[in-house]
Amino acid sequence: MAEFSRQDHQMMALALKLAGQGRYTVSPNPMVGCVIVDHQGNIVGRGAHQRAGEPHAEVYALREAADKARGAIAYVTLEPCSHYGRTPPCAQALIDAGVSKVVAAVPDPNPQVAGQGLAMLQKAGINTAVGLMREQAKALNRGFFCRTQHGRPFVTLKLAASLDGKTAMANGHSQWITGEAARLDVQRHRAKSCALLTGSGTVLIDDPSLNMRLSAAELGIEGVPRQPLRIIVDSKNQLTPGHRLFSLEGDILLANKRPSPHMYPRNVYQWQCQDKKPRVSLPALMVHLAQRGINNLWVEAGAALAGAMLEHKLVDELVLYQAPKLMGDKAKGMALMPSLSHMDQATNLNLLDVRMLGDDIKLTARVCYQNLTTQQR
Amino acid sequence: MAEFSRQDHQMMALALKLAGQGRYTVSPNPMVGCVIVDHQGNIVGRGAHQRAGEPHAEVYALREAADKARGAIAYVTLEPCSHYGRTPPCAQALIDAGVSKVVAAVPDPNPQVAGQGLAMLQKAGINTAVGLMREQAKALNRGFFCRTQHGRPFVTLKLAASLDGKTAMANGHSQWITGEAARLDVQRHRAKSCALLTGSGTVLIDDPSLNMRLSAAELGIEGVPRQPLRIIVDSKNQLTPGHRLFSLEGDILLANKRPSPHMYPRNVYQWQCQDKKPRVSLPALMVHLAQRGINNLWVEAGAALAGAMLEHKLVDELVLYQAPKLMGDKAKGMALMPSLSHMDQATNLNLLDVRMLGDDIKLTARVCYQNLTTQQR
Repeated sequence: MAEFSRQDHQMMALALKLAGQGRYTVSPNPMVGCVIVDHQGNIVGRGAHQRAGEPHAEVYALREAADKARGAIAYVTLEPCSHYGRTPPCAQALIDAGVSKVVAAVPDPNPQVAGQGLAMLQKAGINTAVGLMREQAKALNRGFFCRTQHGRPFVTLKLAASLDGKTAMANGHSQWITGEAARLDVQRHRAKSCALLTGSGTVLIDDPSLNMRLSAAELGIEGVPRQPLRIIVDSKNQLTPGHRLFSLEGDILLANKRPSPHMYPRNVYQWQCQDKKPRVSLPALMVHLAQRGINNLWVEAGAALAGAMLEHKLVDELVLYQAPKLMGDKAKGMALMPSLSHMDQATNLNLLDVRMLGDDIKLTARVCYQNLTTQQR
Repeated sequence: MAEFSRQDHQMMALALKLAGQGRYTVSPNPMVGCVIVDHQGNIVGRGAHQRAGEPHAEVYALREAADKARGAIAYVTLEPCSHYGRTPPCAQALIDAGVSKVVAAVPDPNPQVAGQGLAMLQKAGINTAVGLMREQAKALNRGFFCRTQHGRPFVTLKLAASLDGKTAMANGHSQWITGEAARLDVQRHRAKSCALLTGSGTVLIDDPSLNMRLSAAELGIEGVPRQPLRIIVDSKNQLTPGHRLFSLEGDILLANKRPSPHMYPRNVYQWQCQDKKPRVSLPALMVHLAQRGINNLWVEAGAALAGAMLEHKLVDELVLYQAPKLMGDKAKGMALMPSLSHMDQATNLNLLDVRMLGDDIKLTARVCYQNLTTQQR
């Protein structure tokens, strides 16, 4: 691996920060940032990919740099593209602008195109270096990396419960377990997610909206905020078009075993799971979602679907909001996992973050699946 | 209330720190610290009550100060005693030493003696001031204050569970839910407690030792560490002398409805609850424990007794160790509270502290009982 200077790190850190501008808008594309620096160390161009279909980060940075790009160094958080897609290849744009060197944090994760952008640059006589702040760049686009490398979305399971792990009283009474700050945080997670998954049970019991209710101003973006695709597992076609979420803006995917007999509005798509089991296969659904370009999936589900996602080892990260309450053992639990009977089968977590949100605690943890290689997941 | 200077605060803070030396040893007495300061502001005496039956904090401080106590100010974390108990009254010792002023953090909480020590000092012509760092002084001896003011111990309920609130798999498999750091922390809490409460179910299932296993060196004290009184609620006399805890050093109290038919060793006392209900009355047990001088009670119990303590509103503080695991909804919960059926009956907590202990989370929370005055509790 190349050795990188202090300036290199500073510039790539800035490029990563710029990339984050696209967090609510770029999917299914990755977030990308670009910084162009002249030979005296002056920043002459900055860019970020803002929205799928719009120019890539390199294009904005080169536009700002104009003539000053000649002989400059371009820092990009992802290998520049080499293919003609919705926009011309960025590697060619960098060549045309006459940059002397390109530093990329990480190669394109798609095995079919990885390295081709760098090769195109090298063939044109441009110096290249790869690997600067690689882990940060991969973490930034963990959903995109997961989808392109493993063929499934990066899955975050959201749970909200009392300190004794309860989500509702035995009679179903569950309103306001967590406070306003936690509910606002959930909206931000929805905004960052390509799609939101729930089960028909939750829709039947709570009739939720499941939409993203923050404004562009609240998100700090321009234009109309994106609504995550709402996905409902409805194996038995229990839902009807009268539920509230069907009347709200944004696309909906019904995952079922047979087409529903009901007439749904035009924003509702149906997908049938092609196997002979009575319920929708969750692993097959994940593959389908990846094919639809879903990078980040946010799961807000009842104990049955949450538990099934965990038992199928499909959850990458857990976000748990804990309300400072005890509800007692008669109340309803947060994850049904009937297959577990021994302590060594318990799902282990690697805590990444613990913080207060109002009176509630927010825990973020990676799920550790032992005895599984990355390939198997 | 008197106004206090910067020096006053510094000296009382030191006295409070000294008082903490007795945390593992003074019960049933309160922790007390004393600092004596001459008119130039020099510290000439320091003392802490170390062990019941040994001299009080003022005695040690006056011994160190000797002649320099004349005309000095004495800072004490609790009103000096006025009665002849196991030691002569400290108020008299302060008078005899010729101090000019006594600053006390808080009056004696016992309504029968409160103010008498201060009155004795005033009668001898010594200036007195009360209320400096009062809340800190009360918090330091919260068990002693609770017992003397409300006639019951300060009760801390310890629970250890997975993030979904489970303590054992359905088959009872429960070893090693939390890690070594959490278990060591439990030992420190046991060491600070006058008594430890559990139920016969826990003894029958786990055959635990329930003793305090830290050495004097580990606790930073001299002499032999105290073993907390182990209290076992055994309403149906299900226990027999063969259980491990009966053979270990330290006193044991069996709380039952009729004397056990078994011959227990001499360190086992029995207490019968005098009412006609089939189970030991927990509120009556608390009154009995206060009468025995138990200031701080540490509860390590199964879901039934833990839930009953909560339902009876007998828990002041919760210490919850959360292991970064999910065990699934079939596993055993942490607190049975069959009387709860609506969200507004849930036990609300006021989080005081969240921290990591190894891989586990430790939460400390005050239990909030609404619609109850302090007197009712």
